[in-house]
Amino acid sequence: MTENVTVIGLGSMGKALAGAFLQAGHRTTVWNRTPEKAGPLVARGAVLAPTVHVAVAASPLVITCLTGFDETRGALEPAAGALAGSTLVTLNSGAPAQARETAEWATGHGARFLGGAIKNVPSAVGAPDTLLYYGGDRAAFAEHESTLRVLGGDTLHLGDDADLAALYEMAVGATLLPALVGFFQGAAAVRTRGLAASTLVPFTVKWLEMIGSLLPTFAREIDTGDYTDAQSSVGLFLAGEEWDLEFGRETGVDVSWAAPLYELVRRAADAGHADHSISALTEVLRR
Amino acid sequence: MTENVTVIGLGSMGKALAGAFLQAGHRTTVWNRTPEKAGPLVARGAVLAPTVHVAVAASPLVITCLTGFDETRGALEPAAGALAGSTLVTLNSGAPAQARETAEWATGHGARFLGGAIKNVPSAVGAPDTLLYYGGDRAAFAEHESTLRVLGGDTLHLGDDADLAALYEMAVGATLLPALVGFFQGAAAVRTRGLAASTLVPFTVKWLEMIGSLLPTFAREIDTGDYTDAQSSVGLFLAGEEWDLEFGRETGVDVSWAAPLYELVRRAADAGHADHSISALTEVLRR
Repeated sequence: MTENVTVIGLGSMGKALAGAFLQAGHRTTVWNRTPEKAGPLVARGAVLAPTVHVAVAASPLVITCLTGFDETRGALEPAAGALAGSTLVTLNSGAPAQARETAEWATGHGARFLGGAIKNVPSAVGAPDTLLYYGGDRAAFAEHESTLRVLGGDTLHLGDDADLAALYEMAVGATLLPALVGFFQGAAAVRTRGLAASTLVPFTVKWLEMIGSLLPTFAREIDTGDYTDAQSSVGLFLAGEEWDLEFGRETGVDVSWAAPLYELVRRAADAGHADHSISALTEVLRR
Repeated sequence: MTENVTVIGLGSMGKALAGAFLQAGHRTTVWNRTPEKAGPLVARGAVLAPTVHVAVAASPLVITCLTGFDETRGALEPAAGALAGSTLVTLNSGAPAQARETAEWATGHGARFLGGAIKNVPSAVGAPDTLLYYGGDRAAFAEHESTLRVLGGDTLHLGDDADLAALYEMAVGATLLPALVGFFQGAAAVRTRGLAASTLVPFTVKWLEMIGSLLPTFAREIDTGDYTDAQSSVGLFLAGEEWDLEFGRETGVDVSWAAPLYELVRRAADAGHADHSISALTEVLRR
C-alpha cells in the first residue's frame, strides 16, 4: 500500500528523493521556492503545489530537504497551520541543537517529528545499500518505515531523541573533508610527476578500507579508555610530520593544512600518550 | 623454489615480515640493533646474524624495515661492502628524495634497489589482499617477485623510478591522519551523549566506502581540469563550517583543527570555484 508523500526543497538531493517516491508509485506532491525546478518531476507524475501550505496539507508524510534547519523553519513557517496530525521528516545537515529546536517547533504545531540524515550522494537514493537514519517519534517511524525505505534499503531508527541523526551525521561527516583534502593533496603530488590522479584511486580506495578495518579496535580503545596495546602509536605519527613537510617542499604541494593535526599528535605525546594508540587523540579533542 | 632472505629491523612490522618468510619456508636471516627482539623468530627457525654485515652477506634478497631512510642508511653502512650483487628492498616511510638518495647509495655499492611500501598494519602481512608496491630495478623485481609476494598477495611494480613507492605511499597516506582525527572527533562527540564510540563504527565504515566511491569522479575532474559538473560543490562545503563550529560548541569537542581545511575551501571559492566540484581544492593545494 502506498501513501501520499510531500517533498519540500528540490535541490539535487530533493529531486532524487521525490523521484524515488514516484518510482515506487507514491502520489508525490512537491514544492520549491522556485517552482521551475519541479518541471522534470511533474513530467513524471508529481503534483506541484502552488503554496507550501497546500504542499504540507496534501500528505500525512512531509519530507523537507533544504540546506539547514534555519532554511527549513523559514520555508515551513507559512504552512505551520497545516502541520497538525502529519509527520515532518527533515533530511538536512545541521547541529543537534537546531534539530531539537525544529522538533519542538513542529510538535508545538501538532506534528510528529523525525530528524533524518542521508549519508550519500543524490545518485545513491533508492539503492538497497543506501543508509538513512532517523531520530525522534518511534510510532511515526514505525508507521512510515516502509515508505521511508524507498529512499534507501539501509533505513534505521536510532532512538527517541529528535537530534540523534544530526548528532551522528555530524560525527560521521567529520571524516569527509579531511579525507578528501588528503586525497587531493596526494593527487596534486602525483601530478607534479606527470602521473594521473586516477592512478592513485585504487590505492586510496584500498587504504580507506584498511582505515575502516582499524575503527572497531580504535572504538574499543576509546570506549574502555585503555590505549596501551598500540598497533599504530602516537609516536609513530609524530615521526611522520617531518616526512610530510619534506614531501610538501619536494612536490611544491601545500601541506600546511595538516599542521594542527600534528599539533594534536604532539599534545597527545606531551600528555603521556607517545607509546599509546593513536586513538588516544580522542582524549586531547575532549576539551 | 625458495630463496634465502634477510630481514633487517625487527619492529612489529619487521617481525611480521620475517614471520611470513619463515611460514613460507624461506631460510630467513634476521638482524636487529637489539638482538633480543629476534628471540621468537629464532625459536621459529630464523637465523640471527651476529652483525649487519653477516646478515647482508647471507642472502641475495635483503629487506630493511626501519623507521626511515636515514635509519636505513645508518644501519646498513657497516655492511656496505657486502651489498654487491644483492637486491636491497626498503620497506619504510619517507619522502621520495630520500628514496632516490638511498637507491644511489645502494647501487653505488653494486646492489640492485627496490623501494617498497606496505600500506597496512603488521597483522595484515601475508594476507592475499594485502597491498605492497615497489619502484626501481625491474629485473630485480621480476627475479624476486614470487618471494616478495609472500608478504601480501597484491604485490605490484610501479615503474623503474626508485622513488615511486615513496611518492605513492606519501600520496595515499595523506588521507590517514585527517580521516582518523575526523573519526576521533565524532567518537568524542557521541560519547558526550553517553553513547559508545563503537556505535559510530558501522556508519563511518559505510561513509568511508561512500568516499571511496566518489574518488574515480574526483580523479577524472582533476586530470581533465573540468570541475563544472559538481555533485558536491565547494559552496556546499563552505556552508558546513558554521555547523561544525556549532557542533564543537555544543559537544565541547575541539574542532579547531579543521579551520585550515575550511580556509582552503574559502580560497577555492574566492578563486571562482564556488559552484565547482570540491575536487577543485586540488588547484588551491598546488603552490
